[in-house]
Amino acid sequence: MSDFFTLEKTSGKARAGKFVTSHGVVETPIFMPVGTRACVKMLTSEDLEELGAQIILGNTYHLYLKPGHDIVEECGGLHGFMSWDRPVLTDSGGFQVFSLADINKISEEGVQFQSHIDGSRHMITPEKSMEIQRGLGSDIVMAFDECPALPCTDEKMRESVELTLRWAKRCADVKLKSHQHLFGIVQGGLDVDLRVECMNRLLEITDADGEKAFTSLAIGGLSVGEKNEQMYQFLDEFTPQMPQNMSRYLMGVGTPVDLIKAIGSGVDMFDCVLPTRNARNGQILTNRGPINIKNAKFAKDQSAPDPDCSCKVCKRYTKAYLRHLQTVGEFTASRLISYHNLYFYLDLMKRARAAIFEDRFQQFLQQFLENYLSSKK
Amino acid sequence: MSDFFTLEKTSGKARAGKFVTSHGVVETPIFMPVGTRACVKMLTSEDLEELGAQIILGNTYHLYLKPGHDIVEECGGLHGFMSWDRPVLTDSGGFQVFSLADINKISEEGVQFQSHIDGSRHMITPEKSMEIQRGLGSDIVMAFDECPALPCTDEKMRESVELTLRWAKRCADVKLKSHQHLFGIVQGGLDVDLRVECMNRLLEITDADGEKAFTSLAIGGLSVGEKNEQMYQFLDEFTPQMPQNMSRYLMGVGTPVDLIKAIGSGVDMFDCVLPTRNARNGQILTNRGPINIKNAKFAKDQSAPDPDCSCKVCKRYTKAYLRHLQTVGEFTASRLISYHNLYFYLDLMKRARAAIFEDRFQQFLQQFLENYLSSKK
Repeated sequence: MSDFFTLEKTSGKARAGKFVTSHGVVETPIFMPVGTRACVKMLTSEDLEELGAQIILGNTYHLYLKPGHDIVEECGGLHGFMSWDRPVLTDSGGFQVFSLADINKISEEGVQFQSHIDGSRHMITPEKSMEIQRGLGSDIVMAFDECPALPCTDEKMRESVELTLRWAKRCADVKLKSHQHLFGIVQGGLDVDLRVECMNRLLEITDADGEKAFTSLAIGGLSVGEKNEQMYQFLDEFTPQMPQNMSRYLMGVGTPVDLIKAIGSGVDMFDCVLPTRNARNGQILTNRGPINIKNAKFAKDQSAPDPDCSCKVCKRYTKAYLRHLQTVGEFTASRLISYHNLYFYLDLMKRARAAIFEDRFQQFLQQFLENYLSSKK
Repeated sequence: MSDFFTLEKTSGKARAGKFVTSHGVVETPIFMPVGTRACVKMLTSEDLEELGAQIILGNTYHLYLKPGHDIVEECGGLHGFMSWDRPVLTDSGGFQVFSLADINKISEEGVQFQSHIDGSRHMITPEKSMEIQRGLGSDIVMAFDECPALPCTDEKMRESVELTLRWAKRCADVKLKSHQHLFGIVQGGLDVDLRVECMNRLLEITDADGEKAFTSLAIGGLSVGEKNEQMYQFLDEFTPQMPQNMSRYLMGVGTPVDLIKAIGSGVDMFDCVLPTRNARNGQILTNRGPINIKNAKFAKDQSAPDPDCSCKVCKRYTKAYLRHLQTVGEFTASRLISYHNLYFYLDLMKRARAAIFEDRFQQFLQQFLENYLSSKK
């Protein structure tokens, strides 16, 4: 377990490190593009290789419903199915069950729900989530947790944390494939004490062989309704209390500003649909802040989408061309912008990592925010 | 004019040749992917380069409406706008005006219509079509013609041919850019004598400087309602009567079988949306005939989309993966299949050309049809 993550360098609370899976090494801080249904929307596995994505995420809920984890397993797991030989992380299915499906009942046993596709009835339990992720063959498997929306009462939050802990133990008791690592998920809302308690109790959990169950820990249940500033403040207090020798994954977050601030508080891993989802709406992320390419002012603009970017889209195409494609509804626009936006995120992680190694992360953060927020001034 | 096309080899009526534009040489027989709105749907200019597309087509009607030829011209013509430095052909806009727009009135002057996008009123005349194509900066400009649907009365067809000839002269009188070549369009339905008359009268037309106006000729008005066998028979009679020293472009046709048969009758150039449009519906073209990837039998099929194909999609992905992406509605499926289907068309042209050089085109045609139609037996 302790060989999984290596802390290489710190700069203030910010950390550079690496973790090792049987599909390769991942350098942190890292952003994981979201390949919801075994595909990062609009892109191919080749694109992701070319972008330098070191690890991608697959969604257990979606893949369980279609094509089914049995089919994915028969086709060589997610790696074989989508022809991707670098690391993969799968979530537990919990978040999508809570956000997309019609919940019928949450019980000690698990969650009964109806598919958002066809209304069919299903039940995901901690054991079922492990079985699905085992079939998907991901390198990193997430424990099945409950994630309440914020704000929520202290009583509800306490109950939810207790349920998450009991479910975490049941996940730990399931035997995964030998290459799979299990991450525990810390819940507890914005209550630092409750989070610390949840974390410490997770760290005590052992698997069926009596070994410590979790290779690393994730912070779940953020970016679910609270204010940004609350999240930043919480992360800045809580993250440094997490074990130094484990990677720290902030689930489902966030904007470029969120990522940079969270890295400044000691977070190592991120995933978010924002760069690809917003791409499909015509939002191009640039070092001077996001722009909406549909804006009429770009109709004849022959400059690069992001003049400071060296991705292949910015080197080849103009704002005028992308605006045209986006406004007439050509999906090639979404494709090109998704490519650029992911490049932007991945490049941001590389730059953050370099700044940490040179112990100038705070300066980097200040400079980044100044440029990125400049258009809002 | 006579340097434009060079006939290199024949095999029966089938021809291998090349034509020269200021953006490069094109080897025939050639298929031109259709980049309707300055984009071959789902693909990028890089993809087209990688596929070895030697020339692409842009649609005057669509580009006139959005973004407008003035904007395209300001961005360096279609070449600059879409970052494509190989040859481009633009159609006249006529076919789309007749098939997509609400026609208000066809007169001697031109065609009054309402945009299919917003109902706005426009008029395209021969002069206007030349002005638009001049702005688009294509290497090959098509004359503005009238294209009646088949079947149609002899009288209507005769009137239409006369109008097309008067419009052809008006096109010829417009000065294009120095790198642009004008193609005349032969009309006349399935009446070989009328077609020959139309062709001979086109060949007499001179431009404002008294020079012969048309670099080469296209066959318009086929695949518009007649039976396949009627088209094949017509082409086999008519095409050999066309000038040997000009390229022969069969507009808007067709299936792989259509192309191979038309090459056998002496056609050199093709365009069609079929490979990309059908791709978006999940049809994969293979050497053993088309398959629909949505079919449940492919759910666990780990073979290549077309096991006989060496394109990058077939080398990397499986039927099972493409079926999953297509059935859940991931556009990456359309993208990958569009890529493969265009590869299939372009490769078919290469194989036909090689067979002509080795004077075994008839055998090639027989063998291709036998394989391609084998699944229908």
